[in-house]
This record gives sequence, C-alpha cells and structure tokens, in this order.
Amino acid sequence: MRNLLLTLRFDGGNFHGFQVQKNARTVCRVFQDGAQKVFGERPPVKGCSRTDSGVHALRYSLSLRTESAIPCERVPAALNANLPDDICVIGCRQVPEDFHARYSASGKRYLYRVLNSPYRDPFRQGFAWHWGGPLDADWMDRQAQSLLGAHDFSAFCAAGSPVRDRVRTLSRISVCRQGDMLEFTYCGDGFLYHMVRIITGTLMDMARGLLPSDSLPDILASRDRSRAGITAPACGLYLDEVFYPTLSAGEKTWER
Amino acid sequence: MRNLLLTLRFDGGNFHGFQVQKNARTVCRVFQDGAQKVFGERPPVKGCSRTDSGVHALRYSLSLRTESAIPCERVPAALNANLPDDICVIGCRQVPEDFHARYSASGKRYLYRVLNSPYRDPFRQGFAWHWGGPLDADWMDRQAQSLLGAHDFSAFCAAGSPVRDRVRTLSRISVCRQGDMLEFTYCGDGFLYHMVRIITGTLMDMARGLLPSDSLPDILASRDRSRAGITAPACGLYLDEVFYPTLSAGEKTWER
Repeated sequence: MRNLLLTLRFDGGNFHGFQVQKNARTVCRVFQDGAQKVFGERPPVKGCSRTDSGVHALRYSLSLRTESAIPCERVPAALNANLPDDICVIGCRQVPEDFHARYSASGKRYLYRVLNSPYRDPFRQGFAWHWGGPLDADWMDRQAQSLLGAHDFSAFCAAGSPVRDRVRTLSRISVCRQGDMLEFTYCGDGFLYHMVRIITGTLMDMARGLLPSDSLPDILASRDRSRAGITAPACGLYLDEVFYPTLSAGEKTWER
Repeated sequence: MRNLLLTLRFDGGNFHGFQVQKNARTVCRVFQDGAQKVFGERPPVKGCSRTDSGVHALRYSLSLRTESAIPCERVPAALNANLPDDICVIGCRQVPEDFHARYSASGKRYLYRVLNSPYRDPFRQGFAWHWGGPLDADWMDRQAQSLLGAHDFSAFCAAGSPVRDRVRTLSRISVCRQGDMLEFTYCGDGFLYHMVRIITGTLMDMARGLLPSDSLPDILASRDRSRAGITAPACGLYLDEVFYPTLSAGEKTWER
C-alpha cells in the first residue's frame, strides 16, 4: 500500500468546491470518478483544504492510498485521460505512510487577481475580478503590510464561521501590478473562512474610496466583520501552493 | 448619418464564426442584438472578415452607419452593457463615409498559440492548441522564413475553396517562445481559407517529424494541399489586428 501525493490544477468555475456534496459537481467527486478507472478502486482522498464554489487552484494537493503499482511518473497522464478538461493532474510522488495532505501542511499561498482594464476581457472572464477604475497597486501594497504577522483575524472571517481560534500568521502579503492585472499574494500558516477574499475586498474598498484610506489597522483591531469591506468574488481567487516542510525538494521529481 | 468603426474582442469558442447564419449563434448576430438596443435600430454591419467557428479575435473591426448621436467615447460601454461576456467592444471612432471595414484594409495580423507543456492547462483550455512533446521555436522560425513574400499559397488553402487568385504576400512570419507558449505571428495583405491554420499545422508536423524537416519550399512550390500538413485546430487562432492605411493614429483616440 503506497501513500501518494497528487498535485491538481483546476478551473473552479464549474465546481461546487472540493468537498463531496450530494447532487453537486465537486472536484473530489470528479477526481474520484477518474481515479476509479485508473486504480481499479475508488480511493478515499484527503484534500489539503475545502475550497469554495468557483475558486481555482494552480497547485492543489491531495493524498490517497492505493494498492496499484502504476509508477508515479505515469500517474498524471493516466488520470488526465480520465478527467474532464477543467481539471488536470500535474504531479505525483510517493510520500511517507503518515503523510496527510491537510495535516502535514505548514502553510499555503493564495493569489487573488483583479483585472484593472477599462473594459472586461472575454479571455479572462471567470479568471479575475474586473474593475475599470484607477487602482494604485503600490499604495495598496503599503497599506496591506499592517496585516503581516500573527493577529486575531476575526474582522476578516465570514460571519457565522464556527472556528474559535481565529489567530493566524500572515508571513507575506503583497499587491503588485503586471500590466492590467493586479496580483495579490498571501502566504500564511492558515486562513479563516473567506479571509483572503475579505482582505482583498477591504483593500479594494479602501482604494476605491469606499472605506477610509487608513482604516486597515482599526478594522483588524476591531475583530468585527461588519467593519471590513466586501467579500471579493470567488472567480479571482487561486490556491497557489501548499507547503510541506517534511518533504524534501527531491521528492518533487515528478511535479512539473 | 455617421460611419463608425468599432473594435471587438471575442472568445470564439461559442460562436459559429462572424457571418450571420440561420439558426446559429454568430458574432454578427449577437452584436446586432445588442446594438439594436443601444442605437434604437438594427444596424447593417460590415465586418473585416469572416472568421471560422471557434476562432478568436483580439481586435476585430466592423463598420456600421447610424443616425444615433451617442458620442464615440460612450459607445463601447453602452454596447458592452448589452452584450454577453464572450464579446466586448474595446474601441469606437468615426471614419469617413466611404470607409469599409473589409475593403479599406491593407492587411491583417494573425496569431496562433500552441501551449507546449507536459500537461494540458485548465486555464488555457480552448485558447491554444496543446502539444506535450518537445518543440524548437527557433528552428521553426527559421524554416518559416521561406514563406515570406508574394507566392501562390494554393498548398496552404483549404481544398474546395472557390477563390481563383491565390497569390498573397506575407510580410512577416515568426515563431517565438514565451514560457510554455509558442506564438506564431503572421502579417499579410490577405489570407486564403484556413491558410494560417494549415501553415501552422505544417510547421508543427515538420517539428514533430511527421513531415521532412526541409520540405516547406517544396510544399509551397507544389501548390498541392495534399502535400502540406494538418489544419491546426481553430481554438489556437486569433485575429490580432486589421491595418487601415488611410486612418491616422489620431483617429484611434477611443480605442484602448
């Protein structure tokens, strides 16, 4: 019995998130449908996180146990031949027996993309949040730095979340412009429900004059969701990478 | 009565080309449906070219006459509010009465995109032709130069095309790599039916060893379609720009 760590890339637009749900097309269900044909069994799957409806992944990690002897380097192509176009396996490696895609992770990186062009773009429809007015990426980047470090992020957690311990550590937050695209990057040891989307929405509201320009530290200190800005739409959010400190870079051989 | 030149951007994936056809969703029909609401009349439209089913446009030109007094700078936003997400107006300017989007053009530029990555990419699905094997862009670029200039391009014209004069002039042809994307660029005074897709398919077949590596001059000289390579799929083709020598750059004010 091997424990395999698979890396997936998916366009979340037509998925109701990762987790299996009744009567919904989810990443986990679609993946298992394909995996069943390749491994000859329907493998139980451990995902690195739930993702919301419509959220994308550049590198999503999941682990599974299988008796199948298919070499790791052949697993992606075999699975991709049995998966629909909006999901693709881009890496597979064998990991220690006690490895778990979620509990072995030390942190994650998310990207949020805002298309800042006068008109919408048919080729990036569904892949970014479109905003036509002026946005100063450097200014937003400077404001965002006040969220660095360990804080109680209750103000940036969706109302009604049952999670009690709301202290998380952000090790990196940046906003940079690449042409007409604003890229928000967030690295942290963990993220509350909607946290990235609410921080992004709050920065956008500040930049658009809908919130006072210096309000970020006060909002954070308030721990009050109603003080923060809107929840940015799901279509701009990408899970970019999951960090596993116990895995050596060498074990990434088959990930491209 | 003004003559307006509009620039459109569209994802061709769900269009049966530009030209109005019975019972088919075409760019022209969808555009006219929106324009009717804005201009209060259904304007006859002159497109710069037919495009095939599935072919994209970064900057497609069409001209129309209207009695409407809406200022040019407000036309794109007004139209976009009445158009679906896969089509967008990105420019509008007034042009002389005798201007015609097709007959006033001196040439066009097309792009063809090949995604050269080990696995397909859910985010570029439908926006490029995927090929996983090795491809040498510099070598393809050198081979392609033998097509420069004025030639009878019959070997690169879809069989059955009724066009008699098959001499066209290619003023630029290039293949360059940008990361995992190969960009083929073609500038010319005109293009035969499927010409860009057949040239691209032939270069790809040569690079993949399916045709002799030095066969391009012979194929061109043969004027025989059966000697050339496959027709590259529509999803990788983009009409990039249409050239109008009689229009000054100043008239592009409202095009972004």
